[in-house]
Amino acid sequence: MRKKIRVVQFGVGPIGASIARLLREKESVEIVGGVDRDPAKAGRDLGEIVGAPDAPWGVPVSAHAHTVLEKPVDVVMHTTSSSLAAVMDELLECLSAGCCVVSTCEELSYPYRKHPELSAKLDAAAKEEGVALVGTGVNPGFVMDKLVLVLSAVAQRVDFAKAVRIVDASKRRLPLQKKIGAGMTPEEFRAQVAAGIIKHHGLPESVAMVADGLGLVIDDISETIEPVIAKETVKTPFLEVAPGQVAGVHQIARGTSKGQDKIFMELQMYVGAKHPADTVELRGEPNLSLTIPGGTHGDIATAAIAVNAIPSILAAPAGLRTVRDLPLAFFPPHPLS
Amino acid sequence: MRKKIRVVQFGVGPIGASIARLLREKESVEIVGGVDRDPAKAGRDLGEIVGAPDAPWGVPVSAHAHTVLEKPVDVVMHTTSSSLAAVMDELLECLSAGCCVVSTCEELSYPYRKHPELSAKLDAAAKEEGVALVGTGVNPGFVMDKLVLVLSAVAQRVDFAKAVRIVDASKRRLPLQKKIGAGMTPEEFRAQVAAGIIKHHGLPESVAMVADGLGLVIDDISETIEPVIAKETVKTPFLEVAPGQVAGVHQIARGTSKGQDKIFMELQMYVGAKHPADTVELRGEPNLSLTIPGGTHGDIATAAIAVNAIPSILAAPAGLRTVRDLPLAFFPPHPLS
Repeated sequence: MRKKIRVVQFGVGPIGASIARLLREKESVEIVGGVDRDPAKAGRDLGEIVGAPDAPWGVPVSAHAHTVLEKPVDVVMHTTSSSLAAVMDELLECLSAGCCVVSTCEELSYPYRKHPELSAKLDAAAKEEGVALVGTGVNPGFVMDKLVLVLSAVAQRVDFAKAVRIVDASKRRLPLQKKIGAGMTPEEFRAQVAAGIIKHHGLPESVAMVADGLGLVIDDISETIEPVIAKETVKTPFLEVAPGQVAGVHQIARGTSKGQDKIFMELQMYVGAKHPADTVELRGEPNLSLTIPGGTHGDIATAAIAVNAIPSILAAPAGLRTVRDLPLAFFPPHPLS
Repeated sequence: MRKKIRVVQFGVGPIGASIARLLREKESVEIVGGVDRDPAKAGRDLGEIVGAPDAPWGVPVSAHAHTVLEKPVDVVMHTTSSSLAAVMDELLECLSAGCCVVSTCEELSYPYRKHPELSAKLDAAAKEEGVALVGTGVNPGFVMDKLVLVLSAVAQRVDFAKAVRIVDASKRRLPLQKKIGAGMTPEEFRAQVAAGIIKHHGLPESVAMVADGLGLVIDDISETIEPVIAKETVKTPFLEVAPGQVAGVHQIARGTSKGQDKIFMELQMYVGAKHPADTVELRGEPNLSLTIPGGTHGDIATAAIAVNAIPSILAAPAGLRTVRDLPLAFFPPHPLS
């Protein structure tokens, strides 16, 4: 039997907890530590924090990454923030400790256009240590970019690419329902958009990845965020939305050339959405479309795609990688046997 | 500007011709030669053979690979046979000339289970020359394997995988309509199945790739081929099928564990199919499905996926590769600029 993959969970919020529970099921993985700055978590057992039935795991969570990364670690699962600037120090600390990193930081998924200098810095740091890092997730990381590129493999020519993700937020966590403005007045919603509070991160990153992957030359990436207004009362386990109130977000990102759409990415995430689905459409030779009825489940799938990326990132050439060049697939239960 | 990718087309049947025409559109590709044993083709211009509007290309087709491979060649596009045993010498000749190979040989798509010794021989030959080869196509190569594995990237657990491809052969080439038995009596069909003439190759290879990719342990791969019987008259541009005659094939491959289906691949390819589509289904956590309405177009897509594999195979580590580990995507018009 080969050695197990030694993994650290960096960030133990809802997504990090979900990842940690899934890691625990992989017999080829050994969870060797957790990191979280929250004083309510630091010092406790990771299994207890994530509500594992088999807790305690004997895996301490520390407030400081360096104490955890002193031990031999192969991969860090990083789930702390959407902002690349905010997590640079965390990522660099993991890389300089010689660890590969799989992160759910949305801006890391394809950072070259918005953050060229940070991208170069991460790439250099990873190469210096001979390790690789990648930003992944469902969106960005799958529905609006990887799936588009996978479908394009059977196209002879692509002139236009579109992805539409419709999510029924009724079945999601309360924090997510609040994050999309469910139950607000349209005015409250617009104020929170203006303040940068209501926003799904990552659509421009998906547009950039698809543009580069398809060779579609675009001169601008723009984004709009509008409320979805409830037409009838919507009840969720957590809250109730009255007609005229906000049910959620309707966000559109466009990649354009001289004002013309080349790439169109649309996210509708609201309570009471009737026909949730992920759809990809390519126009060219031939026209192609692809649908995931019901849509990729946000919470389950985010943990899955992050954990499933572990074999790929360990096998990847050193440097900053993206899901554009990583072959994502399943992480089988016993890949090391 | 970097050097163009120098490509040879090996095999100039319908698929090879379609690939050659698509290669001609890629500005980063230079077609440097063709190979075909057919005396009606050898010695002629490749552009003329493939019916290119801009023929002649000044690209000679030779009956002998070695005369073409004497020149510097980066990639050989290989489209001669479904049988790996039959093409071993051709593949080894390309590899020993230092060329990467993209082949539509169905049995090459995932050859480890049926041909472990040939697989090892190809892998060693490729590594010795520092080049890579891959077998690709729509099926095997995409619908029943790569798409299944891509979808599995968002699954936490997979217990069962299924792919169904329904093709309306009415719109396909006459040779394909004949190949699936359209217009035969059921007895003629069964005789041709027994003789190994009627058979879509590659389903067991897809089953094997998916089993390994998902970590599903299977102890047997079995396959059945039945006729689809026309219930009403079907007319195509080439032939007419009367009620009671064969409209096409219904082929099923199963990967089983102790008699229980773990992987189920179904191909229905017949004239007059009403609802053509490619569908993938995963059962596990969560259940997932994915549909390509209308289905991936066989002829257009086969040429596309082969040509689109060129950047991936050039970037791949030396050895025998499969679409399981290659990140397939689009080959943009100007990847070298």
